[in-house]
Amino acid sequence: MASLWMSKLKLPLLLLILQIIFVVLFGLTVEYDDSADAKRSSSKTNDVEKYYPMFQDVHVMIFVGFGFLMTFLKRYGYSSVGFNMLLGALVIQWAILVLGYFHKEHDKIQVGITSMLTADFAAAAVLISFGALLGKVGPLQLVIVAMIEIAIFGLNEWIGVKHLQAVDIGGSMFVHAFGAYFGLAVSRVNDNRKVNNSKNEGTVVHSDLFSMIGTIFLWLFWPSFNSALAAGDDQHRAVINTYLALAACCMTTFAISSLVDKHGKFDMVHIQNATLAGGVAVGTTADMMIEPYGALLIGSLAGFLSTVGYKYITPFLNTKLRVHDTCGVNNLHGMPAIFAGIAGAVASSLATTDNYGFSLYESFPARVPVNGSAAYIDLTGNIQVDPGLGRSAGQQAGYQMAALAVTVAIATVGGLLTGLVIRLVPNLGKPGEQQFFDDEKYWNLPEMEHTFDHAQPNGSHCINESELDESPRPMFRGHAVQEPHTTIQEAESTDQA
Amino acid sequence: MASLWMSKLKLPLLLLILQIIFVVLFGLTVEYDDSADAKRSSSKTNDVEKYYPMFQDVHVMIFVGFGFLMTFLKRYGYSSVGFNMLLGALVIQWAILVLGYFHKEHDKIQVGITSMLTADFAAAAVLISFGALLGKVGPLQLVIVAMIEIAIFGLNEWIGVKHLQAVDIGGSMFVHAFGAYFGLAVSRVNDNRKVNNSKNEGTVVHSDLFSMIGTIFLWLFWPSFNSALAAGDDQHRAVINTYLALAACCMTTFAISSLVDKHGKFDMVHIQNATLAGGVAVGTTADMMIEPYGALLIGSLAGFLSTVGYKYITPFLNTKLRVHDTCGVNNLHGMPAIFAGIAGAVASSLATTDNYGFSLYESFPARVPVNGSAAYIDLTGNIQVDPGLGRSAGQQAGYQMAALAVTVAIATVGGLLTGLVIRLVPNLGKPGEQQFFDDEKYWNLPEMEHTFDHAQPNGSHCINESELDESPRPMFRGHAVQEPHTTIQEAESTDQA
Amino acid sequence: MASLWMSKLKLPLLLLILQIIFVVLFGLTVEYDDSADAKRSSSKTNDVEKYYPMFQDVHVMIFVGFGFLMTFLKRYGYSSVGFNMLLGALVIQWAILVLGYFHKEHDKIQVGITSMLTADFAAAAVLISFGALLGKVGPLQLVIVAMIEIAIFGLNEWIGVKHLQAVDIGGSMFVHAFGAYFGLAVSRVNDNRKVNNSKNEGTVVHSDLFSMIGTIFLWLFWPSFNSALAAGDDQHRAVINTYLALAACCMTTFAISSLVDKHGKFDMVHIQNATLAGGVAVGTTADMMIEPYGALLIGSLAGFLSTVGYKYITPFLNTKLRVHDTCGVNNLHGMPAIFAGIAGAVASSLATTDNYGFSLYESFPARVPVNGSAAYIDLTGNIQVDPGLGRSAGQQAGYQMAALAVTVAIATVGGLLTGLVIRLVPNLGKPGEQQFFDDEKYWNLPEMEHTFDHAQPNGSHCINESELDESPRPMFRGHAVQEPHTTIQEAESTDQA
Repeated sequence: MASLWMSKLKLPLLLLILQIIFVVLFGLTVEYDDSADAKRSSSKTNDVEKYYPMFQDVHVMIFVGFGFLMTFLKRYGYSSVGFNMLLGALVIQWAILVLGYFHKEHDKIQVGITSMLTADFAAAAVLISFGALLGKVGPLQLVIVAMIEIAIFGLNEWIGVKHLQAVDIGGSMFVHAFGAYFGLAVSRVNDNRKVNNSKNEGTVVHSDLFSMIGTIFLWLFWPSFNSALAAGDDQHRAVINTYLALAACCMTTFAISSLVDKHGKFDMVHIQNATLAGGVAVGTTADMMIEPYGALLIGSLAGFLSTVGYKYITPFLNTKLRVHDTCGVNNLHGMPAIFAGIAGAVASSLATTDNYGFSLYESFPARVPVNGSAAYIDLTGNIQVDPGLGRSAGQQAGYQMAALAVTVAIATVGGLLTGLVIRLVPNLGKPGEQQFFDDEKYWNLPEMEHTFDHAQPNGSHCINESELDESPRPMFRGHAVQEPHTTIQEAESTDQA
Repeated sequence: MASLWMSKLKLPLLLLILQIIFVVLFGLTVEYDDSADAKRSSSKTNDVEKYYPMFQDVHVMIFVGFGFLMTFLKRYGYSSVGFNMLLGALVIQWAILVLGYFHKEHDKIQVGITSMLTADFAAAAVLISFGALLGKVGPLQLVIVAMIEIAIFGLNEWIGVKHLQAVDIGGSMFVHAFGAYFGLAVSRVNDNRKVNNSKNEGTVVHSDLFSMIGTIFLWLFWPSFNSALAAGDDQHRAVINTYLALAACCMTTFAISSLVDKHGKFDMVHIQNATLAGGVAVGTTADMMIEPYGALLIGSLAGFLSTVGYKYITPFLNTKLRVHDTCGVNNLHGMPAIFAGIAGAVASSLATTDNYGFSLYESFPARVPVNGSAAYIDLTGNIQVDPGLGRSAGQQAGYQMAALAVTVAIATVGGLLTGLVIRLVPNLGKPGEQQFFDDEKYWNLPEMEHTFDHAQPNGSHCINESELDESPRPMFRGHAVQEPHTTIQEAESTDQA
Repeated sequence: MASLWMSKLKLPLLLLILQIIFVVLFGLTVEYDDSADAKRSSSKTNDVEKYYPMFQDVHVMIFVGFGFLMTFLKRYGYSSVGFNMLLGALVIQWAILVLGYFHKEHDKIQVGITSMLTADFAAAAVLISFGALLGKVGPLQLVIVAMIEIAIFGLNEWIGVKHLQAVDIGGSMFVHAFGAYFGLAVSRVNDNRKVNNSKNEGTVVHSDLFSMIGTIFLWLFWPSFNSALAAGDDQHRAVINTYLALAACCMTTFAISSLVDKHGKFDMVHIQNATLAGGVAVGTTADMMIEPYGALLIGSLAGFLSTVGYKYITPFLNTKLRVHDTCGVNNLHGMPAIFAGIAGAVASSLATTDNYGFSLYESFPARVPVNGSAAYIDLTGNIQVDPGLGRSAGQQAGYQMAALAVTVAIATVGGLLTGLVIRLVPNLGKPGEQQFFDDEKYWNLPEMEHTFDHAQPNGSHCINESELDESPRPMFRGHAVQEPHTTIQEAESTDQA
């Protein structure tokens, strides 16, 4: 009984302890951004005016977009949108500390609108990983994954941005590729083949429509994601390119979805996800001079790649490589992000002062001549002034590819190790095989009214409680009539480790 | 079998071919806006800062607003939000080309945030037309309608703005009236009286609530729609007037909805739609000096007009004129837009330098004295400098009425001809009479668990599969238990032409 | 029969009369803001650029946020989102008049983007009160409550801001505490113990997910609510503090929700509501120098306070004090707002030129030395120049506490009196005890297809209509199969007075 009590306490106590740690660490190491401090601020204007509208778009993407996108499962809506919110709230605090540490320039870490933006980007990586694990991993495990992932995320982004000086305005490599392959690696280590027997891994009409809320807000606000940290003509170009890439991607997704279906019908899973791949695929090149037709081309190919991925590659990964990918993050984030990184290298190799003019050194600061200098804005929004490295176009392209390779490598290894942690540490509240994709284990669900039991006094009733226990649960409201028999004891007994 | 294969391929191949054409046309004729080009851009600021927040509001209206507004049908949610997204993605690419052609000022068409805005406005027209056709026309037909409609839309807008020099800041005439009467004309030509026998043309509670997501986002962001292309005090005024008109419209819609009901109850269809009519009705006059009480008055009357339309005029059009209007676009867009155009003419006739001061010539550039000149911003956001036409207030009012009349005429004739095209071209995948308002023909739907079949082993089961085939389908989840028996063969056999 | 006719007419006629009065009053007393008037405006820039993005965020909070948050009840979704919209549309017109009257500075009341913002804030107060009354009070009663509440709201805010010179950037005292205790007082006076017998006061899965749409948009946009009327570094700080407080609040809400559950499960009602308490709790101090860790601390405590409130205090208030609080506004708005007010007093007592520098007098204008002067922006966005009152930090803290006490007192007394009005005036369409939390009385609901009746021709049917009348209604779609037998006569007979 004591152990049951302890088991039930683990997650809430961990959350409270983490929150206390955050308060202490913020107290010791974090101060307001210069433009947000009453005494240090020198001007009536502030960064809020420049960044806030796009920050809020990104904020909506993280919490409404990812949150509702994942509600497609018929019995996992509470967990999808709820755990998404919990992980997001956890990560934005932790990421301010971690990214602030890696990019520290003052005595203390400064928090402001740009660090909020980058914290939201970091949350995106974790929530993409969550998509690979959705329904198969419990919230205690997810919190542990998120904490480790952010530390590795910060390291990888620091290597890519600071040391390799790769550019990636929309975070396709540092956010999308990283989050996808990290999550897939965690999924691989925690693979349980029984997942494929679950009756819960399906949709109902209203869960599909809730999911479309997520899809469309992601699709609409993706230009903000890819341009929020850019400025001037770079920002305008990033908005245009992302808008065009997503429009083209939507077209090819519908086309390929119908083409690969035996009756020519559309598949909701493609529309919910692959329509967004254009935003990922154009993420690295969004602020480059790829020309409008280039954006359309990248978006078109991303829709093709992603839809084909859902149809053929996801089943292959599941059956052949034992990588179960609940939301198909490999198709929406992983492959399109690799495509984005390669496109970024190609576009970098074509960038000259002929097509960029003076802007070349802003877009690619490492290309500043050795005796020159240039300012650029890093992922945390700080202006960096570095001595030029004098890279050629080809060299920059090489470093872009290096950043992509490093990211995939660090994400995969980091994910495998993190996956081992949550696999080997015992009693982390992992769902049992009967509890995959089911809110029941973690949420108090609404009771059904048992109207049928009372409606037919003469014995002609359709469903009574005893029958329910022996049969698939009726799905009137997306959830079933059932006694709340999932106790802690039972949960623990199904725990693997 | 070959023809079945061909039939299934038509829509995806058309989408792919259109997308390839778009890539090629963009490659040949489109470049970045001056402020978005790395080499040509001369400043660190860009149009994004000015236009982006309102652009995103409009973007939400087009894809979330229209998309979810149309999910009210109980079995057509996937098609409503899905085809809305597809048509939007198609039209914004096509409209950049078409509107860019009509308003071309450089060697190439320039794409930037303002052309994205006008492309979204054009998408609104097509999606309004879609509302008249919802559930009765297939996606292949819709794509053809959209392509033709945008070409005619561009022509009409060019006539109205460039030649008649009518002003219409919120596009009530050029977008709402055009879209509504174009769609109703297409509906008339493709009328099938069997539509009134369909059991699917109704709502369920959750579909009504999904629809309210669309309603409220449209209602909230309409001030952005009516003011995004205005500037200075005109923009501020357009925001205020639209906000007030919508508040008043909501009040009268609730009042009239209850008044016309025999039990005094509210009707969801009125709340979902007629509450928005104030935004349409104030669209032409939003930036004019109609005074706050004038905005309230216009909004109040629009709510009255639209609710009465849903109650009495929609049934009349359906039964007497054989114009079936699924979403009631005549009430939400058509009549309020005509009202808007007339109000615009009246307000124009009252505009003098006494109430507008120097702004008069900005608001009504055609009124610049013949020997003067004035600059104005056209629908694509370019600044136009024209020699003054020296119009009087009354003359301007006349041209406003002319633009309204021309718009309704071009929309109606264009819609009739377009309707003939999709009626006469054979094998366009038109839904058969049993398939009206049903996602089944176009989407892979989630399977039901057949819990009832297994729950009662003793023969007291309520529903078995054989019974289901002979009876109305149960609606536990908005969709029915059914074998996917709608094959291409069957679909073709129900094709009219 | 005449009286039935009259009864049915009451609400729509009241709405129409109010709308006519608004048109007349706007015509007589309201003009455009200087920056929105064509003749008076002197600049090409306008307040729209500064305020509009955050205004729209707040607008979304009021209509999407509050509207959908309240859709959690299984049979009250239409009323929740519909009446929320109606009350909002009513209040924003009425509040422009009332607040404009209290803050009048010109011959006429000026309407502009800042008065739209404050009108939306006023709407928040009314909709918070609505949360306490949800499902127990009819729309006619709600309209009367809203009209009276806004008048008292204007009075209280005028006392607090103008006379006590208390600061409350996020309106935690003037909006949240006021709205909560006003609503709870109305609920107390209209208490009916039969409410606890209602079978309708529960959720279903899809209603919980609709509610989460409201939750998340409120959570995301709360930084805008708390900073929209601030400027410069104060605004930046308000954004940061609110963002951090909400993240911390989300963490502790999940933790406490699990801790207080006997199986350690999460409760949806906590996640939907208590996660937001951090935004309320940091509302008064959001623009003060509470430091980032202070924001986290306030948010953490708010999540704890609010979740404990839902678990233990709401039942206590209901059973012991006969205050039934449908949405738990005491936990989400009331107690966190009192906490906010106290935190504001503490933070005020610590504010010196040492930590605020020159900004001290902008943040706390009453602290300007007696012979000095300072400008501040009041809740309607007007710049106020007052002679300094020379308050000390301790004195300012005292006035902050006074404003809190006055607000709670005025709200409670105002609510009790308003509650008496709607209790004592006869025939206001109050729902009968069987009609609590049920859309049926006010809305035309979609008909069920009665598939069961037709599916079993051999007599083995589960549900027939006669049985339905005697039994709990089946809940396939959130609403029941039922003849629309709730007539006006019946409704009146159940009226209390």
